Order: sequence, then C-alpha cells, then structure tokens
Amino acid sequence: MDLPVLVINFKTYTEARGAKGLELAKLSESIANEFGANIIIVPQVVDMLGIAGEVDIPVFSQHLDHKSPGSATGYIEVTALHEGGIQGTLLNHSERRLEISILEQSVQLASSNGLKSIVCAGTINLSRAVSSFNPWAVAMEPPELIGGDVSVTTRPQAVKDTVSAVSSVDQSIIPLTGAGVKTAEHLGVAIDLGSKGVLLASGIVKVKNQKEVLEEMAKIMIKY
Amino acid sequence: MDLPVLVINFKTYTEARGAKGLELAKLSESIANEFGANIIIVPQVVDMLGIAGEVDIPVFSQHLDHKSPGSATGYIEVTALHEGGIQGTLLNHSERRLEISILEQSVQLASSNGLKSIVCAGTINLSRAVSSFNPWAVAMEPPELIGGDVSVTTRPQAVKDTVSAVSSVDQSIIPLTGAGVKTAEHLGVAIDLGSKGVLLASGIVKVKNQKEVLEEMAKIMIKY
Amino acid sequence: MDLPVLVINFKTYTEARGAKGLELAKLSESIANEFGANIIIVPQVVDMLGIAGEVDIPVFSQHLDHKSPGSATGYIEVTALHEGGIQGTLLNHSERRLEISILEQSVQLASSNGLKSIVCAGTINLSRAVSSFNPWAVAMEPPELIGGDVSVTTRPQAVKDTVSAVSSVDQSIIPLTGAGVKTAEHLGVAIDLGSKGVLLASGIVKVKNQKEVLEEMAKIMIKY
Amino acid sequence: MDLPVLVINFKTYTEARGAKGLELAKLSESIANEFGANIIIVPQVVDMLGIAGEVDIPVFSQHLDHKSPGSATGYIEVTALHEGGIQGTLLNHSERRLEISILEQSVQLASSNGLKSIVCAGTINLSRAVSSFNPWAVAMEPPELIGGDVSVTTRPQAVKDTVSAVSSVDQSIIPLTGAGVKTAEHLGVAIDLGSKGVLLASGIVKVKNQKEVLEEMAKIMIKY
Repeated sequence: MDLPVLVINFKTYTEARGAKGLELAKLSESIANEFGANIIIVPQVVDMLGIAGEVDIPVFSQHLDHKSPGSATGYIEVTALHEGGIQGTLLNHSERRLEISILEQSVQLASSNGLKSIVCAGTINLSRAVSSFNPWAVAMEPPELIGGDVSVTTRPQAVKDTVSAVSSVDQSIIPLTGAGVKTAEHLGVAIDLGSKGVLLASGIVKVKNQKEVLEEMAKIMIKY
Repeated sequence: MDLPVLVINFKTYTEARGAKGLELAKLSESIANEFGANIIIVPQVVDMLGIAGEVDIPVFSQHLDHKSPGSATGYIEVTALHEGGIQGTLLNHSERRLEISILEQSVQLASSNGLKSIVCAGTINLSRAVSSFNPWAVAMEPPELIGGDVSVTTRPQAVKDTVSAVSSVDQSIIPLTGAGVKTAEHLGVAIDLGSKGVLLASGIVKVKNQKEVLEEMAKIMIKY
Repeated sequence: MDLPVLVINFKTYTEARGAKGLELAKLSESIANEFGANIIIVPQVVDMLGIAGEVDIPVFSQHLDHKSPGSATGYIEVTALHEGGIQGTLLNHSERRLEISILEQSVQLASSNGLKSIVCAGTINLSRAVSSFNPWAVAMEPPELIGGDVSVTTRPQAVKDTVSAVSSVDQSIIPLTGAGVKTAEHLGVAIDLGSKGVLLASGIVKVKNQKEVLEEMAKIMIKY
Repeated sequence: MDLPVLVINFKTYTEARGAKGLELAKLSESIANEFGANIIIVPQVVDMLGIAGEVDIPVFSQHLDHKSPGSATGYIEVTALHEGGIQGTLLNHSERRLEISILEQSVQLASSNGLKSIVCAGTINLSRAVSSFNPWAVAMEPPELIGGDVSVTTRPQAVKDTVSAVSSVDQSIIPLTGAGVKTAEHLGVAIDLGSKGVLLASGIVKVKNQKEVLEEMAKIMIKY
C-alpha cells in the first residue's frame, strides 16, 4: 500500500451509519480514485461487510476478538472478516483497550489471516511498546484530544518522538498519528513531522462538507 | 409473536458464515413460511444486517453493547441494529456473560429501542434472577451441556423448575430452554415441560440434513 | 446475629487506613460492646486480617475473588479469609461490580466456606435479582447517592419496595440499605421503612466526631 | 538492591498462607541474612502487611490496582502499601494480566509512590514491550511452564533473547526469568544466561525441604 494513508474511523456515529455509512464509503472511494490517494475506511462493525461488498478501497474492522471460529457467540471473528473482504483491523482503540497479552496475540491472529493491523496507543511509550508486537502500523492518539478541537499536530515533539519510538523497534512499521485532526493543514503537518498518515473520525464524519475536506486532504497526500 | 419459537444461534460457526449463513437464513425462512412456524435466526455479528435485508423472519443479534451512538469504536450499538431491521438480541450468552448491572441496563436499552431481549442463564436461580430485569424471554442453558450430545431435556425437573422460576417473577416473560437440543423429539419434550420454545445452535448449524431437521421441528411446533 | 446491623465500609479512605483503621475498628468494638449494638466493620483488603486479629466484632471483607487456593496470584481467596477470622464479605459493591454468573458462584463460595455475604445492588430490580442467589443480606444503594450528601432515606418508597422485593424471594434474607446515610436519624428512618440495618462509609469514616455519631446510631439501633 | 535477586511468590498456596506464610517469610529472612543473599518475598494479598511488619527483607505485593485512595472498595491501593512498608509489586502476572494502558499507568503509580515494580511477561516480545514502561524489573515466564516441572532454563535461547530485549530498551531494567525453576542449578543457569535473578513459587512453597533448597540457592546467588 502506498503511503501516506488516510484512515477514516466511522465509530458508531449516527452520521456514518447504515445508508449514510455506505454513502461516506462511496465518497471516500471516489476521491481515492480521482486523486490516487490511499484512503482506508473503518465502518462500524455491523455495517462493515455490507460496505466491503460495495467499494474497492480497503475496508478495515474497528476491532477483532481473539477467538476461534465456533463457540464465540457475539464476537468478531477473524476468518469471517477475511472471507468478507476485510483487509485489516484497528486494535486497542482508546475506546476499546485490550489486555496486553491478548493484544499481542490479536496482532498475530490478524496477520496469520492476512489482515493488516493498526494498533492504537495513547502515549509515546505505549507506541514503542506495541511496536514490539510487529503490527502493520501504530497510531498514536493522545486520549484527551480524541474527538476534540485541538489537533495532535499542536504537539510536534510528541509526534516526532512517536515516529522515532516506532521506527526504533522496526523501521517497517508505519507510524500514524491522530486525535483532533480536522484539516488538510493538520494532515500536512503530521506528515512533515514524520507520520506516514493520519487516523481521523469526527473530522470527516461529522462535518457538513465531507467532500470538500476529503478532496483537500487528498491533494495534500499526493504531494508526498 | 406466536409461540412456541425456535431460536437458531449461528454462533461463529464456519458452517453458517457468509454465503452459507445467508443460505441457512433463507432455508429457515422458507420452512417458517411453509409450516407457519416461528423461527428466529441469530447470525454472527458481522453478517447480521446483510441477512436481515434478505429475509422476512425475525433476525436477532448475538449480543448488544451498552453504549451510546458515537464514541464506541468496535462495539455493537443498538440504534444501528434497530435501523438495520434487527428485532431483538441475545444477552448474557454463556460465551459472553455480562456484569450484572450492565445486563439490567442492556435489557432496558434493547427494550427502549424496540428490540426484544432473550437473556441466557446457566442455572435455575440465574433464570429467576434475570427475570427481574423484565426481558422478553429467558433461555436456561446448563453451560456444561452447550454444544454437546446430551439434551437439556434429559433433566426434566430442571426445565420445569426454570419455567416456574421465570413465571413466578412475571408470567409474561417467555421461558425458553436450550443446550444439546438436536431433534424434534427434544423440542417436543421441552415444550411439554413448559418451555415456550428452544434455543439451539449446533443441532441445526452443524448437521448435514438441515432441511429435514428443521421441517421435523416445525411440524412439532405447530402442534402446540 | 441480632438485627438491626450497622455495616461500616472503610473503603480505601486514608482516614481509615493502617493505624487509623485499627483505631476505628477498636472504637466500633467498644461502642458495639457498650450498647449491645451489632456493628460489622469492613476494613480495606490489606488491613483486614490484622484488624480481625485485634477485635471481637465481626470483620467482613470488601470483596472476594471467585478463585481456588493456589494459582491465583493477586487475588482475595476465601479460605485465607476464613482461616484469618473473617466472617463475611461484601460482593458486587458499586465500585466493584461482578459478572452475573460469577456473583452467583461467589455467594455460594462464601457460604460453603462459612462466610456471610452482603450483596450490593443499585436498583430495586437488582435487589430482587440477587436475592435469587440466596445471600445472607442484600444492600440496596442507589449509585448516584453513594458518597454524597443525600440519604437514601429521602426515597422512602424505594427503600420499602426493596424490602418487599428481597422478602418476596426469601424472607430469611436481610434487607439493608445505604448511600448518603450520615445520621442516627437516617438510620432510624431506614429501619422504620423495613430495612434491617444500613451500610455506610463516609458518614462514619470521614467525620471528625466518629465516636459521637456511632454512639447516637447505637442508641437508635438498640431500640429495635 | 544488590543482584542477583530471588523473588518468592507465595501465590494463594495453602502451604504459604497465614501462620505458614509468616514462617516461610521468617525462613527467607534468616537465610537472606545468613548468606547475604537478596530475597524478596511476595505473600498473598491479605497476609502481606502483617508479614511486612515482622521481617526486614523486602516484601512485595502480588498486584496493585490502578486506583486512588477513597472510593475503591475491594481494591489494593498503593498508598496503603507504601505506608505498610511494602517495597514493590508484581504487575501483570500470568494469573492476573492487565489492560495495556492500565499496566503503563500502574508502573508509574508504583514508581511515584516509591514502590519498585516487577512486570511479568509471557514472551520475548512482551518483555521488550513492557520494558518501554520503565519498570524496575521484567520477569519473563512462559505461561505454559508456570507451576510445572520443566524449567525455563531448558530454553536457554529464550532466556538470552529476553535479557537482550529488555536491555535493548533500557540497560537499567533488571531482567528476571521464571517458570519451573526448582533447583539451585536452574538458578545458576538462569544467571549464567544473563538473568539477574529468578521469580519462583511452587519450587520453594510446595517443597518439604524449603530450608535446604533456599540455602542451596543462596549459596549460588552469592557467587555472582
């Protein structure tokens, strides 16, 4: 996958649910194709497979349970994701933190089933820690900024240190950043600081001019 | 909904996943319609909405998270279920037990969003306990029999006592039973003992002659 | 044990920790003995056995883990409590809610090891629900009042309904109430409403005149 | 603290509970003093403070909850440990794994209250990961060997790689190893492989000749 990458988490926002979720997925696909930008969409769990059947850009899961197929009523099981065309998963999102051994095993489970994993982490130390599990990407998001109006890029040193911390463990892991990212400018700053992309949610999902914001972001992305 | 009811939990069995899950859903629908039997299907989480869009029999969720729409990455949120045509949910399945206060609140959350809840319980005392939360139905399943070859109906006194325990709290709650139920005969015995239906999984999902077993069960059901 | 009973939860308050905890335990003992009032103390976990060795009134645990002796590093194991002279345990306190099946099993584990259990519940329905597990006592505490300045006795109907709900399951279960209880008057009202005692914490632990408040409460208790 | 160190986890073994726990603590103290060996004892939670008041060797906690003093009924709170003379804590033992962010914060909480932390980890990657939190020590224990008859020292490469992984993050973190360690010879091999000590439980707690085994281990330790 070419970098940088824009990862859009639909969370369980009503603005990105059901038919609206599919619409946002289609919009993301059309902009990705028009600009040649790499956009990953992460719809809510129950919409995910339906959307994956309708678009050609990568669809990731918001979570993955460390379970085998079978006796796992109510869980999100990896082979069903793979079969349904899901290409990766978030893990350890700040709204869904995991027990540390389960996290290590979930990264392995994703990987051995052909899914990329983006492991979220709230601090620089946690970013380095989770890099030891060898995920596809690590997304550092200070929890106190998530969903708010202050972009993580207002903390340039933290972004730089995260990039260094992740790379110090393994240079092939993709360092991402997120929290409060709402504009193409934020995106540009994040990339200038060494981040290979951003993880965002409300900055796209909850704005009225989704198309415009996405287009501006795509224009910035393809400069790199 | 007319009683008795047959509730088919697809779990995360590979035999009831993706295209196969839809096939089983269609089969269930056709038998429900042919015989006038009440069949509820409970597909795995990621398949649920897709199947709900394709069949007219009730589709239930395997689980529901006690979360509000929005900042709940990776969770199963009730308004998305309602919007997607889901009519109810299992709660507290033996493979996904809940904290007691969360369970009470989840029953209320389902109910206030128009979803029926089937609360699972592993003992007679637990069946009475969860009846206090006023769910639509209570399904008693001894955990040690789930997925096995011994039917809960080999313990007639336990089934009868569960029915009494549930009804003693509120006569409008539907007492169900499950675990090891594999044949129309098991189903008949369960109903004779006072159960208003059964919850089953492998007994349908993992057999080769699904159609035949379902038809036999439907024939028994419509006698009551 | 004679009723009514006063249950003092030391929580992890600094005012009832270590030497101060032992002091409060001794004060409780002396007032219990002087007035013939029944006072149960519930010191913090790490102080519990030391205090139990120093006083003759009942000492309860704040929690009990559903574990067998042996491979349970970091847990509170019941046989160690029994051997150390602990006579009972709180379970499902609002600050430490339990998974519903674990709660049922923990009540049984306590009972089969000779410990009384006081199961906490935040609503009337939960009080009735947990009564099905046959604990020694059920303590209804609306979570929003715990640690605050509004006594549960300002909701007389809720207290009465809890007493009825608990008794409707089994008349031998002791209905207690708590949250915001700070004065002898609150205690008296609670008992008049049918409660067989109260569970309190800050109302004793965090006041300067502990002796005076306890004496007034003891005077009320022995009138019943 | 001088190295190497012998860390004895009493777990909740009946053989190291109450009076027997105090006896083992005293024995450990006498051997530590006689040989000048560094022995840390980790009694079960409810015995811990009583034992800390009776011996002069370091007493560690088996666990620490990430809670503030006050409204934390049933939890193990750090300031109570510090006040009671506890010098450190195990964290993330295989029998009590932690959510990854809580683990990071628990290490900080211990440290800011003057307690050393020994973070347990089941794999080499996890050992490196938790080193990012800057604990006092990291103890690698393959879960499948814990409590068994095969010593971790039968996997020399894994021990060496753990030592390297921990040191690669921060040379000041003490690499320990454990699982199946039962003899002075195992201890010697572990130290030869770069481990600065061992964590053991049944190897001391459940043997009849505790004194003899401890003496032999102490003799090995002081050679380094």
